[in-house]
Amino acid sequence: MKDHIQLGPGPEFDRVRAILAALGDAGAPSGDDVALLGVGGKTLALSTDLSIEGTHFLTDWLTLEEIGWRSAAAALSDLAAVGASPLGVLVALGVPADASDADVAALMRGVGQVTLEVDARVLGGDLSKAPAWTVAVTVIGEVTKPATRAGGRPGDLLYVTGELGGAHAALHAWLANKGNEVHPEARERFTHPLPRIAAGRALSASATAMMDLSDGLASDAFHLAAASNCGAVIELDALPVAAAALDFAKGMREDAALFAAEGGEDYELLVALPHGLEPPILNVKLTPVGRLVVGDGVQFLSGSTPVFPKGFQHFR
Amino acid sequence: MKDHIQLGPGPEFDRVRAILAALGDAGAPSGDDVALLGVGGKTLALSTDLSIEGTHFLTDWLTLEEIGWRSAAAALSDLAAVGASPLGVLVALGVPADASDADVAALMRGVGQVTLEVDARVLGGDLSKAPAWTVAVTVIGEVTKPATRAGGRPGDLLYVTGELGGAHAALHAWLANKGNEVHPEARERFTHPLPRIAAGRALSASATAMMDLSDGLASDAFHLAAASNCGAVIELDALPVAAAALDFAKGMREDAALFAAEGGEDYELLVALPHGLEPPILNVKLTPVGRLVVGDGVQFLSGSTPVFPKGFQHFR
Repeated sequence: MKDHIQLGPGPEFDRVRAILAALGDAGAPSGDDVALLGVGGKTLALSTDLSIEGTHFLTDWLTLEEIGWRSAAAALSDLAAVGASPLGVLVALGVPADASDADVAALMRGVGQVTLEVDARVLGGDLSKAPAWTVAVTVIGEVTKPATRAGGRPGDLLYVTGELGGAHAALHAWLANKGNEVHPEARERFTHPLPRIAAGRALSASATAMMDLSDGLASDAFHLAAASNCGAVIELDALPVAAAALDFAKGMREDAALFAAEGGEDYELLVALPHGLEPPILNVKLTPVGRLVVGDGVQFLSGSTPVFPKGFQHFR
Repeated sequence: MKDHIQLGPGPEFDRVRAILAALGDAGAPSGDDVALLGVGGKTLALSTDLSIEGTHFLTDWLTLEEIGWRSAAAALSDLAAVGASPLGVLVALGVPADASDADVAALMRGVGQVTLEVDARVLGGDLSKAPAWTVAVTVIGEVTKPATRAGGRPGDLLYVTGELGGAHAALHAWLANKGNEVHPEARERFTHPLPRIAAGRALSASATAMMDLSDGLASDAFHLAAASNCGAVIELDALPVAAAALDFAKGMREDAALFAAEGGEDYELLVALPHGLEPPILNVKLTPVGRLVVGDGVQFLSGSTPVFPKGFQHFR
């Protein structure tokens, strides 16, 4: 559960606060999505992530293999965000009554593929009948110098890995009932996000703050800034927008950078590095997109004009 | 996932076999419900356990606090079964749309209570909307000499902790729509099972094989014997039957020991100890109920008469 000190306003945090109050002494709140546990001189990173049919995906959109990949990738991305190396994955799988053994195997094949991709193993699991496909993935990793959201300082530069907006383009196309018109690259970004494990590990050595972009830059920059007791400025013109998102935004007559900032589920990393520090060489593009400043809140600029992404209002 | 070598016949194992085949190199099968992972010279025990409304419980039967306790206790019992000391608990919680923050807090209060009871902490979690209450609990513990199901030898004596059949009596009363007539002791056994952590730790030092009774003695003795490449003989007259189960069986004109053997969800331990070894002193009753023998399958005896509990057929 998230640390009460660092929780922002809003109904989703009221629920977490209610849980923390109920747990009392049983709670061991950490500041991020990842729990840290010292064992035998090592630091373990643990995170659990729930993906449910109807809430996170529809089976009309994704194959079962893709559902498995995506669910495990979302959890593994939490390890990337602290700079941890994955050791293993556990999967509690709720299966609809009409699903076959082949269906279950297909979903777990997707889990296995992304788990192998990050050099980890599926250590265990549980199977149960459920009213909808339910994939609860718990990941365990080892970390030397865990990054948190909370260490950013005014003056730090903000960077993102990879490109943004691809998953959002796929989601919008599906939601607009344009299932057949989903850009293949957008579809790929939604169905097969790559947890940025190697990048996270390399960045954690010098990052003052880091997190993964699961809710989207508009929301997540706010989280990182709040946890670091800073404000942030994001230059929309600097955002590395995925080609699929450029195409889609053009078709919708929307601003592509805003569209990319509003979209979640890219599972790229947002990282704060000290000003003047040469960023490490990564196996993925790293783009400066703004900076931390004295104050609070996040200001999005298009040139010198303040703009307000949709994901942002939801924290007001 | 369970080791393919030790899997018995039956449809539930076909599904696990299909998963193991799909995982291929991504799988790291262990022999039991618990995965073991070496970190920094220590051995960690990990298990994940899914409890879903409509499959494992109804909200008519249990309060949300009880659902939380029971779901976490089921997972913690897996740690008891290998002799591990719990370190922490992670909870992925699926919440129906009409549930309040107070409902969520009540469920998590139950999780926190049983977690504190075993000296562990709730390390983290995830919240999501779901079509039914969904509680995926992952537990992590540390273990010195992990017990497995697989080490039993012919001649070993079989013991169970505590008393059996209480939870089964509650379940039957509820299923028979006698919600108001559930024996308070039976209800307590179903709603607040106590993971046998201290007993598991003490027994693991000398146990040749051990597991927890989640499916019931009739099924689970079969699992332990099969994993140990043995047969087993269980003396029904020796079973420590809970008073609530005695009462209930009498009312139903059923054999109380059979009823207790058929009932799952007691979360007591079944342990094989070498013949002639004095069992350790525990904080809970330990009763000899049978022995491992050369051969396969499990024979249940009432005096010298073979009997066939219902849970048994289901593996034929």
